[in-house]
Amino acid sequence: MAKKFSELSAKMPPEALAQAGLKLQTMLAAMPLHELRRARGLSQKALADILQVQQPAIAKLERRTDMYISTLRSHIEAMGGQLDIVARFPDGSVNINNFADVDMQQV
Amino acid sequence: MAKKFSELSAKMPPEALAQAGLKLQTMLAAMPLHELRRARGLSQKALADILQVQQPAIAKLERRTDMYISTLRSHIEAMGGQLDIVARFPDGSVNINNFADVDMQQV
Repeated sequence: MAKKFSELSAKMPPEALAQAGLKLQTMLAAMPLHELRRARGLSQKALADILQVQQPAIAKLERRTDMYISTLRSHIEAMGGQLDIVARFPDGSVNINNFADVDMQQV
Repeated sequence: MAKKFSELSAKMPPEALAQAGLKLQTMLAAMPLHELRRARGLSQKALADILQVQQPAIAKLERRTDMYISTLRSHIEAMGGQLDIVARFPDGSVNINNFADVDMQQV
């Protein structure tokens, strides 16, 4: 009668897992900004239009290796996302909300 | 005989959950930098010493609502953590690695 937890959980729809307060652990995809833009189906021109800047400004920003958090937030939000700033420690992670538009966020 | 998934999982040790590729979903703690510093058991002076700056520089930084990602990264690393920049979309999250010291990170 005994079943492995993994077998049980594999048969559960994601909604049920979520309702049970559980979530499949997945490694986050990691990519640079230009790949994320493409993954969202946006051209530099389309993103430039949303941000009301010229296309070369997007190209330049995507090459940067450092920028203000507010700049990055605007960029992510223009792609339809939300920016989370996470400090990760061996014993847990913390969402830094000095810079957030709203204080409580969930990843 | 039927048991709720939450009852089954509640009896499993965290190691077993992890082995099954599952993880308890917990809302990330959200806090500003000064609270995180205190939570890590550090004074402004101690953090200033690690970063080789004066204590007022830490006080000033903790009051800021915007800063360069590199500045924040140094600050988090001085507390023993790692900075993750996460773009969160309704259909998933992406770790932005333009700014990372290493390309692959896991939250």
